[in-house]
Amino acid sequence: MLELQGIPVSPGVAIGPALVLDDEGYRIPRCLIPAADTSAEWGRLLSAFGKVAKQLEVNRKQTAERLGEEAGRIFSAQQQMLSDPGLLAELEGRVHEQHQSAAYAVSRVLHRYAEALGKLNSPFLAERAEDVLDIEKQLLHRLGAVTSDPLSNLDEPVILLARNLTPSETANLDRQFVRGFCTEIGGPGGHTAIVAKGLELPAVVGIGQFLDRIGQGSQVIVDGDRGCMIVDPDQATIDRYEERAQIRQKLTLRLAELRDLPAETVDGHRVTLSANIEFPHEVDACLQRGADGIGLYRTEFLYLSSDEEPSEEDHYQAYTEVVGAMQGRPVVIRTLDLGADKMGHTSLTEPENNPFLGLRSIRLSLKNQDLFRTQIRAVLRAAVHGDVRMMFPLISTLQELRTARMLVNIVIDDLREEGAEFRSDIPIGMMVEVPAAVIMIDRFAEEVDFFSIGTNDLVQYTLAVDRSNESVAELYQSSDPAVLRLIQQTVDVSNKTNTPVGICGEMSSNPARVLLLLGLGVRSVSVPPLAIPRIKKVIRSVTIADCEEIACRVMQLESAREVDLYLLDRLGDLVPELVVQ
Amino acid sequence: MLELQGIPVSPGVAIGPALVLDDEGYRIPRCLIPAADTSAEWGRLLSAFGKVAKQLEVNRKQTAERLGEEAGRIFSAQQQMLSDPGLLAELEGRVHEQHQSAAYAVSRVLHRYAEALGKLNSPFLAERAEDVLDIEKQLLHRLGAVTSDPLSNLDEPVILLARNLTPSETANLDRQFVRGFCTEIGGPGGHTAIVAKGLELPAVVGIGQFLDRIGQGSQVIVDGDRGCMIVDPDQATIDRYEERAQIRQKLTLRLAELRDLPAETVDGHRVTLSANIEFPHEVDACLQRGADGIGLYRTEFLYLSSDEEPSEEDHYQAYTEVVGAMQGRPVVIRTLDLGADKMGHTSLTEPENNPFLGLRSIRLSLKNQDLFRTQIRAVLRAAVHGDVRMMFPLISTLQELRTARMLVNIVIDDLREEGAEFRSDIPIGMMVEVPAAVIMIDRFAEEVDFFSIGTNDLVQYTLAVDRSNESVAELYQSSDPAVLRLIQQTVDVSNKTNTPVGICGEMSSNPARVLLLLGLGVRSVSVPPLAIPRIKKVIRSVTIADCEEIACRVMQLESAREVDLYLLDRLGDLVPELVVQ
Repeated sequence: MLELQGIPVSPGVAIGPALVLDDEGYRIPRCLIPAADTSAEWGRLLSAFGKVAKQLEVNRKQTAERLGEEAGRIFSAQQQMLSDPGLLAELEGRVHEQHQSAAYAVSRVLHRYAEALGKLNSPFLAERAEDVLDIEKQLLHRLGAVTSDPLSNLDEPVILLARNLTPSETANLDRQFVRGFCTEIGGPGGHTAIVAKGLELPAVVGIGQFLDRIGQGSQVIVDGDRGCMIVDPDQATIDRYEERAQIRQKLTLRLAELRDLPAETVDGHRVTLSANIEFPHEVDACLQRGADGIGLYRTEFLYLSSDEEPSEEDHYQAYTEVVGAMQGRPVVIRTLDLGADKMGHTSLTEPENNPFLGLRSIRLSLKNQDLFRTQIRAVLRAAVHGDVRMMFPLISTLQELRTARMLVNIVIDDLREEGAEFRSDIPIGMMVEVPAAVIMIDRFAEEVDFFSIGTNDLVQYTLAVDRSNESVAELYQSSDPAVLRLIQQTVDVSNKTNTPVGICGEMSSNPARVLLLLGLGVRSVSVPPLAIPRIKKVIRSVTIADCEEIACRVMQLESAREVDLYLLDRLGDLVPELVVQ
Repeated sequence: MLELQGIPVSPGVAIGPALVLDDEGYRIPRCLIPAADTSAEWGRLLSAFGKVAKQLEVNRKQTAERLGEEAGRIFSAQQQMLSDPGLLAELEGRVHEQHQSAAYAVSRVLHRYAEALGKLNSPFLAERAEDVLDIEKQLLHRLGAVTSDPLSNLDEPVILLARNLTPSETANLDRQFVRGFCTEIGGPGGHTAIVAKGLELPAVVGIGQFLDRIGQGSQVIVDGDRGCMIVDPDQATIDRYEERAQIRQKLTLRLAELRDLPAETVDGHRVTLSANIEFPHEVDACLQRGADGIGLYRTEFLYLSSDEEPSEEDHYQAYTEVVGAMQGRPVVIRTLDLGADKMGHTSLTEPENNPFLGLRSIRLSLKNQDLFRTQIRAVLRAAVHGDVRMMFPLISTLQELRTARMLVNIVIDDLREEGAEFRSDIPIGMMVEVPAAVIMIDRFAEEVDFFSIGTNDLVQYTLAVDRSNESVAELYQSSDPAVLRLIQQTVDVSNKTNTPVGICGEMSSNPARVLLLLGLGVRSVSVPPLAIPRIKKVIRSVTIADCEEIACRVMQLESAREVDLYLLDRLGDLVPELVVQ
């Protein structure tokens, strides 16, 4: 039995045989064919292109159904590559004139493309390079030059073990057979983690090198709660985990019964319990679990999933879908929160050395006002269909907030002049996620309608720790005492100035930490849809007096570790059902 | 007349003809020679190697004399490359067996080396690639294949205009003729900026693309105070700048007279005015300007300037040199403050996406305890020669501080057991430069002997802005109200708990901002040696009451711009000599 520790990014436990993904590039040997055969070879190549194109369309549709149109568009980009006339012309030359085999020509040309993209030192384009290699793999498979993709022929449940998984690979996993995954690299805040959570797939990342130690088919347990992977577990361990799985399943059923009950403490304090979503289709999961609203509607996928900038209609459709489905419940739309490096279609800047401290989020919006105004227009127009609120991310100075609000006013004047249908009176808030925003929170409170604390970035900047870097992952702690003091300060000032304040970072989906947040005065949290039942259970099991006593004790502690141990202990007392051993 | 704005990184003004550095790579055409000539060609190549090696030794010696042994070692690395047997063997094969010309062989082989280094996506190795290209250039020059290096044959004063300058290029500039420089890229916090300041060379960086608009020899003004470059100035502008230069020169002479007077306010408050240094030899400049001590002795160059890890003796020699020269005045040695990406000889990690939020500084020291203990041993041993204090950078949690202090205790036990000569009672302090350190400053105050506020990093993390990224440079503001509140909180708690606190970031070398710092209760500042006279002038021109009134007003303001304008205005009232128009 081998137990390895990693970073838990998606909760739950899964047991099954290992499917170890071998990441090595394909090396197709140089192979020339007789001149007489080139036409037939070219025909074979075109036929492979056709088959791969068809498969991509299937992928696209399936992913779109499962995760929404935006996610499906990941595959549109690959489809575009396949139909690139330059690519076909180069391949034709190699086959017809240089007499190369189809497989060799495909391998050479696509490898060179991928290499060129990889060299550009842009994380966005590096992901595109993976798309190219993915197409290559599929073409070579259709040409019979490599054995088939192990993931496409699954017929039994497996635990996937890989060096890394891209978000699109994760989104495309066959949920029927893939029960969980573990990777060597990766950190807690990546898109892969978000997609895994969306799919409710137990996952542990950032384990460090382990693939070379594990045989294909070994029995593996992924423990996405504690962040560990167990290889070749003994019977006692298996029994323990199977028992946990049963308890968890029963718990899920019991929690589901809370759906139509309010998120109210034992002593009658009503808490707003909303959901964070990434794709419009997730709204169903929110409603099924009784969310009070959408506390954070991320809009990045509109920009990531297509090669063109989204149009005002793209925005408007995506917002209207969610706002309509929520039937009058609040929907907080966060404006673009991307780094320049992620926006492939608008190569606005050179690669940055520290993109998390660079031109991103509201800074990028303020430097690209056309793009920003398009989004604001769509938000104000969608607002006629329900209770829409708009939120700006990464605000660090009063001037940024004022500039953003000024742009909203300009858009309002434009829409009014055009006679468009829109609302001009929607609440406007900001994310509190840069330390400067907390430090100046009293001044900001005079100029916004609400705050939302984004603990992920706040932790990152307060402690100077990149949340996706595994070599400093141990320092990335939401329960760090400095972070807790900043949250306390934000909540105190908000409550004193009657500015509504909520929390939408990862921290609020942790049942133990929610005890603390309630004790600090938080009365609004927004969590992934999956987390709603258990957070509601916590809220309905405690009194505010309990939580205030807990908060008082926690604020005396000196390290994140002490805080988390204490909170877990108190959670065990107050809501024992949620503490699965 | 063309005026361009950039980022001022080294103060002062210079006027002169432009020397535009053309950055294009050399393209040496493929050239084969008759078999009979290969021996002679190989002789030519060896002779070029000999000449370049000699020149490198001259560069090394001159740089070592001017900037210290450590800086000189930059050239040792190039010397090592030149004597690499693998390199010579490959060149010999090309000349003798493939009959290539010496210039073509050199160009091919070294370009390939540089390319391979550049591809590794490590800023450190990318700099090494520049070293390789530099050798190639020199060899080709000696082989008569390219025209001579424009910088090596200067005979009149010039203003250097370039896409970018590396720190070593900057260090190697001929101060007799190069009067200042302007570059297209670069930010305010880089090593180039520090070296330029050390050389007292006016410099403006991050101007954006301009080289294509400027003819060789155009008249250029570099204004390192206001951060602008003026091309083809009209006579009125020239007159204005020449007048400023005269005033500045007179001022320098007058300020020099303050050397032996104390840094004391008009109402009798003594301020400790220390110097920040990077190289041991800078201690002369500190003494010449009457520094009260060394408030920040950076130790990074020990690690950067050699291919091997510095030995305990290397550390000890460097510290002893400074401690001895300072004759009992305090010397604060800061332990290693480097990112993993900078340490070429210990490739500890994979490249990081956000190195400023990664494994760096004290985090790196705590993960590499042998390296850290070597440094601590040398500090404790050097402490017998004077008033040595040790400071840890980038502390973000109490646990880090405690681990570092525990290591000091282990080293003390080791040294005691060995019977070494050392001191065990030196003051131990920490940099306050991560927001978390300020937030928890009351707790930290119980466990350190002193604080030093590092405004450069504090600004960076508080506002989430990379200080070397020109696309967000406008957000990097030391006078941002949030930063000022954090400084105020640190100083208040320090004074209340009787913990000595100083400021060693860039902010303290700005005369206007010093008014504010004094008003906030700061009584110890550490600045580059060059800045000592004018900061002493400020201190000797004001009362603490003046400064407290200023601070009170400033803390009401809402933006860095308002703060800086107000402070400049008050500096004009209180110390008009320092406000050069």
